[in-house]
Amino acid sequence: MTVDMQALGQRAKAASRTLKQLDTETKNALLLAVADAIDACSEAILEANAQDVADGRAAGLSEALLDRLNLAGRLESVTNDVRRVAELPDPVGEEFDQQVLPNGLRVRKRRVPIGVLGVIYEARPNVTADVAALALKTGNAAILRGGKETLRSNSAIVDAIQQALAEQGVPAGAVQLIRDSDRRYVRELLRLSEYVDMIIPRGGNTLHTFCRENSTIPVITGGIGICHLYVDETADLNAAERLVQNAKVQRPSVCNALDTLLVNQSIAERFIPRVIERLSQDGVEFRVDEQAAAVAPSSVSVKPAGPDDWDIEWLSLVLGIRVVPDLDAAIEHVHQHSTLHSDGIITANSAAAERFLNEIDSAAVYVNASTRFTDGAQLGLGAEIAVSTQKLHARGPMGLEALTTYKWIIEGEGHVRP
Amino acid sequence: MTVDMQALGQRAKAASRTLKQLDTETKNALLLAVADAIDACSEAILEANAQDVADGRAAGLSEALLDRLNLAGRLESVTNDVRRVAELPDPVGEEFDQQVLPNGLRVRKRRVPIGVLGVIYEARPNVTADVAALALKTGNAAILRGGKETLRSNSAIVDAIQQALAEQGVPAGAVQLIRDSDRRYVRELLRLSEYVDMIIPRGGNTLHTFCRENSTIPVITGGIGICHLYVDETADLNAAERLVQNAKVQRPSVCNALDTLLVNQSIAERFIPRVIERLSQDGVEFRVDEQAAAVAPSSVSVKPAGPDDWDIEWLSLVLGIRVVPDLDAAIEHVHQHSTLHSDGIITANSAAAERFLNEIDSAAVYVNASTRFTDGAQLGLGAEIAVSTQKLHARGPMGLEALTTYKWIIEGEGHVRP
Repeated sequence: MTVDMQALGQRAKAASRTLKQLDTETKNALLLAVADAIDACSEAILEANAQDVADGRAAGLSEALLDRLNLAGRLESVTNDVRRVAELPDPVGEEFDQQVLPNGLRVRKRRVPIGVLGVIYEARPNVTADVAALALKTGNAAILRGGKETLRSNSAIVDAIQQALAEQGVPAGAVQLIRDSDRRYVRELLRLSEYVDMIIPRGGNTLHTFCRENSTIPVITGGIGICHLYVDETADLNAAERLVQNAKVQRPSVCNALDTLLVNQSIAERFIPRVIERLSQDGVEFRVDEQAAAVAPSSVSVKPAGPDDWDIEWLSLVLGIRVVPDLDAAIEHVHQHSTLHSDGIITANSAAAERFLNEIDSAAVYVNASTRFTDGAQLGLGAEIAVSTQKLHARGPMGLEALTTYKWIIEGEGHVRP
Repeated sequence: MTVDMQALGQRAKAASRTLKQLDTETKNALLLAVADAIDACSEAILEANAQDVADGRAAGLSEALLDRLNLAGRLESVTNDVRRVAELPDPVGEEFDQQVLPNGLRVRKRRVPIGVLGVIYEARPNVTADVAALALKTGNAAILRGGKETLRSNSAIVDAIQQALAEQGVPAGAVQLIRDSDRRYVRELLRLSEYVDMIIPRGGNTLHTFCRENSTIPVITGGIGICHLYVDETADLNAAERLVQNAKVQRPSVCNALDTLLVNQSIAERFIPRVIERLSQDGVEFRVDEQAAAVAPSSVSVKPAGPDDWDIEWLSLVLGIRVVPDLDAAIEHVHQHSTLHSDGIITANSAAAERFLNEIDSAAVYVNASTRFTDGAQLGLGAEIAVSTQKLHARGPMGLEALTTYKWIIEGEGHVRP
């Protein structure tokens, strides 16, 4: 089957003109209809998903991946998430920066949908419903491209969504799926700049790099977190131990999990043994520099950190530990190795905290808290489409507002420029 | 001479770490020192500029281009502009979206410099000082790439700027010029994503397209304006005539000048003859559709509009005129042909105005005012680095705030994620 990407783009653009005119109430009704349709189609969706899982197992996917893929028993949480998006405040239509200029021109900005979003993601099929809901809530059309392992599941979910769209009189172009896993369609999507306004990749480094290098459409990159915590000489070591454990262990497979622990040398001998002992009980493995190795407890085996280990996002129960002489060296290490996602300092010294906050450029900078809070739901956004680690448009967790732009509205009474 | 773009990028990145730490007072002192240094070097700058002008004349540049290039008698306005930037409020350091989460985490956002800007521009050498000033004010390093016709002028200006940087203890990497006009350096700049955070092209469509297609760094595109005014059946025709004249004639060579006039058919016979008569006195030429041709005054010769004429940014004294049956047709025409820069409606009907404001997606949408107001200085921004017509990051005139991003600051007392 060949996908006509031009036609897909045209339909999305046309649908976006309908979507941007919908008021909040209509969009919320649409979201509830989408949730209902997914519920109503649950049998077809779960059947498609069971095939995906069976194919994945036959293809030798790991149990972890199969688990991410599996929707059995989870469809209710998918539709609940869609219903929750309906309850969030709608940023579209909000007006701000009102001013009346000295010449009498009335100027303001109005928040409006971006237009058409292209979202490229992997593995989990719940992302399909999630992204569709966030796009519809903000009046955007979406072109979705999921992983090949979930093509059947995603197709069945989008069938349900499009059924709801039709019932509500919204063009099917509002939510479309590229129903072919050929990689060339990703490349084509990235060049549909006539129709698509923003590309959001959700996946690993390779996907982000591919998008950046091949897209003629603005790309939101992010989601790669080599995260650091620096424990300085004034830190409460009990709190530090809890924070390091939480940041590393609570969910090691995600981008805001801790990768490298930096420890001030004056507390290395007191702190490193206890943190290694505690985390080793959680199954954590360690990659340590020479100074850390020298103070590691003999009861736990640790590996020496290779020169590239500070540039690895572990996404697993591995922790790098490095001893640094002072705050300067800690800041310098973070500058060299951070992916600008989430980095923090554990300290009782407010001057040190302020220096860290000032000098570290990351999307989220922390004082005395776990890096695991870099998350839309945790930070009060209500939803999250991605975590941006780039500098433009949106940084850190992206909620609904990050799916909007604004226009200037300028009203006069026959004003001409002198 | 070969330019080591990697080294240039590294120096810019290193300098940006110094710049982002400077407080407002220090940055303002730096700007005044830059202005003074340009004044002090005026002889060298004007000599270099005279050579550029002589070479340009020998190469057959048009008088208009030579005029844009010429700094003679204009250096004072260049340094005045730099001093004016020192007086603007500094957006860096501003904090917003403060919240204390139910768990006690204190969360806020802080406005910070973007980092390193790559700015690619043509012709006018005053842009060199202008961009340097805006970058320094916002704590950003800049890599500048001017047109080959002004290489000597730009080099002399950047020499002066770097002298001021040295005096103030700021690394020369803060403002660098690519001192070679070989096009390959533009391509290399666009791929310096390790060091450069944002590309701002200032020039024609070709430059913007080239940047979009070749950059791995986020690009702010804009500055191309196919601008429309729609005169509806309720419009005050005296005001409409003045607005159309101002939008077309006041400065036809710029992006916010009017390109296409849309006229409701019910007033075409009354309005089109007078607007053609009036604007023809200013030397405007007309490209008109059949209906407009039918009502054009016999005293003025008009040309039929070709099918591509609605997609041309005239940048000169040419105006397209098209008669439309109603507001829907006007909106549809704008949708098909606008570059999303500046479009307006002239009407006494507030419902029509509201529909136009709602349905037109452009960065600036107007009611009863000239499109010529899409400009940072006119809209109260105090300065403008570019006019964005894309949807992400910043739209319309970009002032100092558009040269900043933000980071999340999250402070706890040992907070872990449950």
